[in-house]
Amino acid sequence: MQREQRIGFIGLGAMGGGMAANLVRAGFAVTGCDRRQDAVDALVKLGGRAATGPAAAAKDAALLFVMVVNDRQVDDVLFGAGAIQALPQGATVVLSSTVPAAFVRGLGQRLAACGIHLLDAPVSGGAIGAEGGTLTIMASGSAEAFAAADAALEACSKQVYRLGDQPGIGSTVKAVNQLLAGVNLVTAAEGMAFGTALGADPKVLFEVIRGAAGGSWMFENRVPHMLDDDFAPKSAVDIWVKDLALVLDTGRSLRMPLPMAAAAYQVVMMAAARGLGAIDDAAFVKVYEEFTGRKIVPNHGSRDD
Amino acid sequence: MQREQRIGFIGLGAMGGGMAANLVRAGFAVTGCDRRQDAVDALVKLGGRAATGPAAAAKDAALLFVMVVNDRQVDDVLFGAGAIQALPQGATVVLSSTVPAAFVRGLGQRLAACGIHLLDAPVSGGAIGAEGGTLTIMASGSAEAFAAADAALEACSKQVYRLGDQPGIGSTVKAVNQLLAGVNLVTAAEGMAFGTALGADPKVLFEVIRGAAGGSWMFENRVPHMLDDDFAPKSAVDIWVKDLALVLDTGRSLRMPLPMAAAAYQVVMMAAARGLGAIDDAAFVKVYEEFTGRKIVPNHGSRDD
Repeated sequence: MQREQRIGFIGLGAMGGGMAANLVRAGFAVTGCDRRQDAVDALVKLGGRAATGPAAAAKDAALLFVMVVNDRQVDDVLFGAGAIQALPQGATVVLSSTVPAAFVRGLGQRLAACGIHLLDAPVSGGAIGAEGGTLTIMASGSAEAFAAADAALEACSKQVYRLGDQPGIGSTVKAVNQLLAGVNLVTAAEGMAFGTALGADPKVLFEVIRGAAGGSWMFENRVPHMLDDDFAPKSAVDIWVKDLALVLDTGRSLRMPLPMAAAAYQVVMMAAARGLGAIDDAAFVKVYEEFTGRKIVPNHGSRDD
Repeated sequence: MQREQRIGFIGLGAMGGGMAANLVRAGFAVTGCDRRQDAVDALVKLGGRAATGPAAAAKDAALLFVMVVNDRQVDDVLFGAGAIQALPQGATVVLSSTVPAAFVRGLGQRLAACGIHLLDAPVSGGAIGAEGGTLTIMASGSAEAFAAADAALEACSKQVYRLGDQPGIGSTVKAVNQLLAGVNLVTAAEGMAFGTALGADPKVLFEVIRGAAGGSWMFENRVPHMLDDDFAPKSAVDIWVKDLALVLDTGRSLRMPLPMAAAAYQVVMMAAARGLGAIDDAAFVKVYEEFTGRKIVPNHGSRDD
């Protein structure tokens, strides 16, 4: 697409807001909507335009980003709220929400029937990656969809994987990534609490294990939050309530046992039951701290709990 | 210690044999024993000397490495087979087996009563690290024990962490590392099988996720074995039968729930029950392949199964 063509953006939360901001900074004309007025105001302040709802955001847009919470919301904004009817023929929807691959495949067919392309384009990198334009995008879709979205994706990301010509492959890879990331994160919390309960210094545990066979992206990224007792949400516990449910539902539809994802989900539920859903997902360590009766960093107060 | 002083080495398996070979190459006079004669012969071929058993390996040694399978074997070789009585006063035992931290603490007291120092020195890096001298050593013990062992440890490793002056801290950090590594490894298998069952290309899954939030040391290191259908043992399934049992037993003694380690252990048991104990631990993927009825790399034959 050309930069003078309009981009619509539905869903300006922590992820979508960061992506839309990077599109504006890259010179695209972005019209966005969100249920929260302050999110729309933030886009306008950066030079974007406000839409009153999904249909207004989609009107005359060559490209329509959708970054809402789940598949039900995708349905609501595209079909219930009339965005698809408002889009010009030949436009491309870029779906960046984390939703089931089977839903995305079906959506591709529904949009094709309306003359609309779909790029399946879930992202990895969290709110920090969205804000900094350093997301990883796991994309699949037709050559037409990629051609329409290329320049805009580049403005939001440090890497775009082209995973195939069918919508659904991107979402499958994202689901596998979330399975691994979620389990590795809960396990990072389990390991840190276990070692601390045994008398190890948590900072020393972090330093040794980050460079050893127990290391992982999640260990490296989230254990510092635990050590700093900083649970201001970069990525929230509630993300895992949703994303690991998506993984487990997919496993159920395949009749495939996923014992690791299932075990992690019980710890996610313990954190959610404890009222920790809105704080940073490093807070899984709090579940374990309650088991052991020992905070891994005893000198800190508990700031968010 | 001086290089002309003798080093005894008990246990010349894949790990101990590699470490002893690096000591010989570094110019130390090493006398080793093992229940397998071919392991002793290999040491002699490199320039080491053969001992008939633990007491003969320990005789006149300033430093005695012990790299046997578990705490029972440590007891057997040191006390049952007379190694401690054969060691000179003031000698240092370097215990590199993965054993419970509580056992190591008790052993430190028992050796101190005999005038012998103990360095708690479990290692990470597998048979490849042992052979290449690139192990990570997680050590704790007195200044005297470190001073005696320093030059020898350097010959075996790329990094020695000094974790404190009490035996047991090294073994605690090792246990935490094994918890994380074991869970992350089983989860790597679960994720790869899940994505493949959903139709993703396993090589693409590997390339995307290794650089994304789902990545881990174990994912990076073991998924290539899965993709190559190569289960020649670099680290065997049976290692996890032992090491995760150690983690879970420790959790039980603390009355600490470890849901992730417990779930991983069930997958370890499935692999062991399936007769996969002696092959490479990337074989956890075979458990999942049986669930899905689909090999992640269908073009290969099954070479080790």
